[in-house]
Amino acid sequence: MEHQVVGKSIPRKDGVQKVTGSALFGADISLPGQLYGAVCRSPYPHAKIKAVHTELARKLPGVRVVLTGADFNKLFGQFIEDQPIIAYDKVRYQGEPVALVAAEDLHTAQEAVRLIEVEYEPLPVVNTIEEALQNETLLHEDWSAYNIVGACHPVPKTNIGDTFTLRKGDVEQGFAESDLVLENEFFCSMLQHTTIETHSALAFADRATGEITVYTPAQSPFIIRGILARAFGVPLEKMRIICTEIGGAFGSKYEAKAEPLAVALALFAKGRPVKLVFSRHEEFQASVARAPVKFKIKTGVKKDGTLLAQQVTIYWDTGAYVTTGPRVNYNAGFAACGPYKIPNAQVDGFCVMTNKSLGTAYRGFGVTEVACAHEYQMDLIAKRLGMDPLELRLKNVLEDGDLSVTGESMRSVAVKECLEAAAKNIDWSNKPLRWTSSTGKLCGKGIACFCKLTGTPSTTSVVIKLNENGSLTILDSSREMGQGVTTVLPQIAAEALGIDVDKVSVSPVDTAFSPYDKTTTSSRSTFHGGNAVLMAVQQIKDQLLILAAKHFGMPTSQMEYENGTIRCKNDATKYIHINEVGESGILKEQPPVIGIGAYGTSDIFDKPDPITHQSQRPTVMWMFGAQAAVVEVDPATGQVQLKTMGAAHDVGCAINPVGCMQQVEGSIIMGLGHALMEEMIYEDGELKNGNMVDYKVPTFMDSDVDLQITLVEKNHPEGPYGAKGIGEPGLAATAAAIVNAINAACGANFNSIPVKPEHILFRKEG
Amino acid sequence: MEHQVVGKSIPRKDGVQKVTGSALFGADISLPGQLYGAVCRSPYPHAKIKAVHTELARKLPGVRVVLTGADFNKLFGQFIEDQPIIAYDKVRYQGEPVALVAAEDLHTAQEAVRLIEVEYEPLPVVNTIEEALQNETLLHEDWSAYNIVGACHPVPKTNIGDTFTLRKGDVEQGFAESDLVLENEFFCSMLQHTTIETHSALAFADRATGEITVYTPAQSPFIIRGILARAFGVPLEKMRIICTEIGGAFGSKYEAKAEPLAVALALFAKGRPVKLVFSRHEEFQASVARAPVKFKIKTGVKKDGTLLAQQVTIYWDTGAYVTTGPRVNYNAGFAACGPYKIPNAQVDGFCVMTNKSLGTAYRGFGVTEVACAHEYQMDLIAKRLGMDPLELRLKNVLEDGDLSVTGESMRSVAVKECLEAAAKNIDWSNKPLRWTSSTGKLCGKGIACFCKLTGTPSTTSVVIKLNENGSLTILDSSREMGQGVTTVLPQIAAEALGIDVDKVSVSPVDTAFSPYDKTTTSSRSTFHGGNAVLMAVQQIKDQLLILAAKHFGMPTSQMEYENGTIRCKNDATKYIHINEVGESGILKEQPPVIGIGAYGTSDIFDKPDPITHQSQRPTVMWMFGAQAAVVEVDPATGQVQLKTMGAAHDVGCAINPVGCMQQVEGSIIMGLGHALMEEMIYEDGELKNGNMVDYKVPTFMDSDVDLQITLVEKNHPEGPYGAKGIGEPGLAATAAAIVNAINAACGANFNSIPVKPEHILFRKEG
Repeated sequence: MEHQVVGKSIPRKDGVQKVTGSALFGADISLPGQLYGAVCRSPYPHAKIKAVHTELARKLPGVRVVLTGADFNKLFGQFIEDQPIIAYDKVRYQGEPVALVAAEDLHTAQEAVRLIEVEYEPLPVVNTIEEALQNETLLHEDWSAYNIVGACHPVPKTNIGDTFTLRKGDVEQGFAESDLVLENEFFCSMLQHTTIETHSALAFADRATGEITVYTPAQSPFIIRGILARAFGVPLEKMRIICTEIGGAFGSKYEAKAEPLAVALALFAKGRPVKLVFSRHEEFQASVARAPVKFKIKTGVKKDGTLLAQQVTIYWDTGAYVTTGPRVNYNAGFAACGPYKIPNAQVDGFCVMTNKSLGTAYRGFGVTEVACAHEYQMDLIAKRLGMDPLELRLKNVLEDGDLSVTGESMRSVAVKECLEAAAKNIDWSNKPLRWTSSTGKLCGKGIACFCKLTGTPSTTSVVIKLNENGSLTILDSSREMGQGVTTVLPQIAAEALGIDVDKVSVSPVDTAFSPYDKTTTSSRSTFHGGNAVLMAVQQIKDQLLILAAKHFGMPTSQMEYENGTIRCKNDATKYIHINEVGESGILKEQPPVIGIGAYGTSDIFDKPDPITHQSQRPTVMWMFGAQAAVVEVDPATGQVQLKTMGAAHDVGCAINPVGCMQQVEGSIIMGLGHALMEEMIYEDGELKNGNMVDYKVPTFMDSDVDLQITLVEKNHPEGPYGAKGIGEPGLAATAAAIVNAINAACGANFNSIPVKPEHILFRKEG
Repeated sequence: MEHQVVGKSIPRKDGVQKVTGSALFGADISLPGQLYGAVCRSPYPHAKIKAVHTELARKLPGVRVVLTGADFNKLFGQFIEDQPIIAYDKVRYQGEPVALVAAEDLHTAQEAVRLIEVEYEPLPVVNTIEEALQNETLLHEDWSAYNIVGACHPVPKTNIGDTFTLRKGDVEQGFAESDLVLENEFFCSMLQHTTIETHSALAFADRATGEITVYTPAQSPFIIRGILARAFGVPLEKMRIICTEIGGAFGSKYEAKAEPLAVALALFAKGRPVKLVFSRHEEFQASVARAPVKFKIKTGVKKDGTLLAQQVTIYWDTGAYVTTGPRVNYNAGFAACGPYKIPNAQVDGFCVMTNKSLGTAYRGFGVTEVACAHEYQMDLIAKRLGMDPLELRLKNVLEDGDLSVTGESMRSVAVKECLEAAAKNIDWSNKPLRWTSSTGKLCGKGIACFCKLTGTPSTTSVVIKLNENGSLTILDSSREMGQGVTTVLPQIAAEALGIDVDKVSVSPVDTAFSPYDKTTTSSRSTFHGGNAVLMAVQQIKDQLLILAAKHFGMPTSQMEYENGTIRCKNDATKYIHINEVGESGILKEQPPVIGIGAYGTSDIFDKPDPITHQSQRPTVMWMFGAQAAVVEVDPATGQVQLKTMGAAHDVGCAINPVGCMQQVEGSIIMGLGHALMEEMIYEDGELKNGNMVDYKVPTFMDSDVDLQITLVEKNHPEGPYGAKGIGEPGLAATAAAIVNAINAACGANFNSIPVKPEHILFRKEG
């Protein structure tokens, strides 16, 4: 039967609140009696802390708490606990906290920060990957002094915080057998997430019970809970995370940033809440970033375009602390060779520590960056072989049953369909690679595709309550951050139960109540949450059958549930529709109907070999897609105009098609910024453009792009209604396609993003 | 095996927060931008509202909302919707809201209230039950105009808001066959709950979504949610009740009082929260009360003391609106003949409407009052027959298998054991009924017993989360109001799972998250919540067996769970203790362990006949107990000193013995107030002593009583570990025993409580 709710576009359930301004984001939350926090941050990117003088700050009227690293020398981290809450021996990046203040008002707190005098002894600054790899100045002198709490592989006595390796076949032999071997580099700039909402936290500590409560727009509250509980030595169950609405995250709110600072202050605030909101400058300088990255990519290929071998070396400029670098390194490592059949492959990834802000999760966990590299390389190969770039890709892309570079027999792969659809969306076959417009603009087309895994193993649980009036409340911990999870999960529940989707709502997220969910990242919410919802719905159906049987005086075995109708198999007059179950009386004075779903992927997870990363099933779900761009370059100004973006993404099943489309649309504009504008510029450890004037992001003025988006629906056998994920994929191939189109238009080989007008004006044609 | 946690006295889990003051009660909660509400209340107990002039109030700077009944003529109620949120045609009790104000600060709100001018046309005041029963002035002229939403039986064109009838055998024939027929009356005064915390609510309305949120110390949040949703025409799922800590309830916070007023204001407050906290005077005059009650009791008895027939007529002075009167009438009706074998019985109960504050639930739902009446009667019978009061009771009390007055074959009855233990606790058998002390005080002993049902059918659900670190979080909606439910449920979970009770905590209550629980009343939390917890724990055990089997590579069938140890049946080396499950790794990356329990009693409930109330099983659980008092009366001053109270209550199983003891201890001091001090005094509809100076409650000065308490443990076959309830029972026989002891000491027949010094000084000996 056709779906009734799944596959129908419905407005976002969180839409009205957000459009009208009634949604409460982090900074909107205040509590009576709250103090205001401010952070004294290091102006030096690398320095020893000789002394911190806080006397003047403490004497300022209205100042209630002043903390330094001497008061609070605790370390935290999700993979390795290398990061002090307050720097106490040295600072490793400009903006690192060296003291904290809480005061009766924000101005007093800020003035107190100004009155804190810190004696620094500057250290040599490690600015670049190359400098870091010299290992002359070590940011972290002894990795072994830290607790490793996740998968993290630092190299002793170096600035390498993590390593990743992938080995398949013999790349040297592959290169030897190739007709053409190409070796290139590619660079992606350092990006700030520039979410509308900055990081914030409001914390209070109950001195009587030791319980700590934190209001935060965290995107992964259970991870934050774990980090804070470990850092502050509090049992998990005494650390409560109450989630506020998220004003944009994209990975930046995956990290504990304002939370540990607010908690540290709250512990000394005599029971008063402490609110800490990052300014935009703090957000730039001292929150998190997408690590700049350098790729070396070497590919061996036959004359007919068949890929034989690929070697990719990746240097993530992870900044001063490891944070989520290892996970970026891991996810990107698996995707570094692209969605291609390559018999011989080698990937080496390194998280390299420099005196910069922290390179962590950013929509795609590195996959967007690797797509730039491998798709740049594919275009160069096509050019050298005189092949059409699309043709080269179609020849090599994975199909069902093909082996991936980690030896997995692939399933539910629709990258070919995506490539073809994306190409069609810009009328690829009827366009040359480059042409000149009637107004003298240089025009070009480019195409790119990608593969991306979702983190595995992973777990999600939900609780679904059937209310007394027959409405449904879903408790889950997937955060709504624009991806539409609070609309999609109700759709899945409504479809499975046959109930009106209007009757289904989703509760906020609060770790005191909400069931465990690992994280809201990795485009996993629909897949994992949806599966958990289906399990919970089944329990609800089972319970309703029992209640209806009792109501009708029939044995439960005589009842059936179909399309929302609970009925007696042998008596057509006895039935209740789920939409009327509240009024039917069958719930009255009966055991409350409540279902749980607990979904995990550990059973399918085939833990990869730690060196080769060969694995039969490293992920429960691969995502694929392709994008094709048409650009117009003004040779006089160097301005690039993205004219058309043809996108095609395999969402498995579009639960809420308009939501899927919006994810891709937003991603394209975001990726446009990556390709053409965005870069955090550091000079000698100092961020030069940490504000929204000098750091350029796309605006509506840049968004006049003809977006042609196709949703491919190749059902995933394990996805809810076949659904995969679409939170990150729309971004993954965007910059790559744009760069390829620019290179086509200009006949150039730009191998670094952003490609800015000055690059174009002073380009070399290649 | 002996229990490890159940039956061990442990400190209350909410104790530290309450003792140190970190617990947040209703009035402690504030939200940024909140307005302050105040209520314009009628000085008249009964009047038509001719006009309400609010112009001056509206002009007062800082006033944001002024509402009258003309703006907001909605009715609400739990059994019958007879009560306006704001009075709009007439007022029926002194203190009834006629207008509401919300302003920037409380003083402005109060001043605005003062500026509101209301034109009243006074109506005749119905002061007493007798006046009401004349039906000359009707408080509610047309009962049929109201929605009946619960079990409520008003009598058209009368002041009778509800009726209850019980019929068994033939009382006239029983009286005819009796050797002695006694007919008496008994009166209980009107009481205020005088909780430390008054009623309060903090509400806000999201104008974009229509969602309404209310912070309240409500004791039954799902009932409040239902009342408010109906009253304001909001779908249940858009009405969110966030529960604050309760500073005493005893039934008073069962009613919607501050909540509808705060919500009404919030709906007009343009998204700003509105906080409304009742003053102590408002609490007295216009919150709720225990209805004053008049009993007529007629008993037929054989010479040997065998009870043959009893007829009880009960007039509850329910006040101006019905509220929970019908449930008081019902529960008390079932208990009106006491815990005795009586072959012929007749009970008639009436909720009578007068122009007074609202008589509603008060610890015991009328059972404490009926115990006064039937135990007073038993003592008079004993005196007339020359029998020992204890002997008379022991001769007649129900035992297992006996038929109750509603025809139920009783089970798990320990009233005999309780009577014997209570008597022993005051050395009954070695004391005369009355004696004179060496200092000339008149001394006497008295004994009383009772029976009390718990509301049936009823339902409770819980969700239990096993956290990543192996700690356990219970989500339930039973409110902690001093009865210790947040300690007892963890004990039950800990016992069943074999986990340390320190690792088990209970989440707050918030209808957005918390699983449905009908109500926190009727001494039901341990029984219902405990059973639901046991169901949820079983699910957790089942899930842990699966995870452990996976961990050890064994089939699940080879695993067993015993005393907290999950082990392989055939391999003693493979086991994990639940206390170490967090560190064991078996939870890691596995589907989250979460259990649900949904317990209901509808299957055992044998709906009583609406006229006779005969029923095989009207309740899942009867509670029984007895108390024996020794008093000393100063003949010069009339002062009564309660010297000893011997109590014995069948708790089924004392999950937390110290908690059970504290419930009884607190009840005894509360009941002492009822017997000797407390009464709300009305004159012509006006409350004369609505403050804590003129309304006397026991203080520590009155609490110097030798308390001898025995917990009888006759396991209930369906109770968790055999437990019954003890929230209300401790109170049930207290005043009755004290009155009987005073009557013994004074040789008097005081048939009204409180018995005050002036009554004693001017007594008649009888």
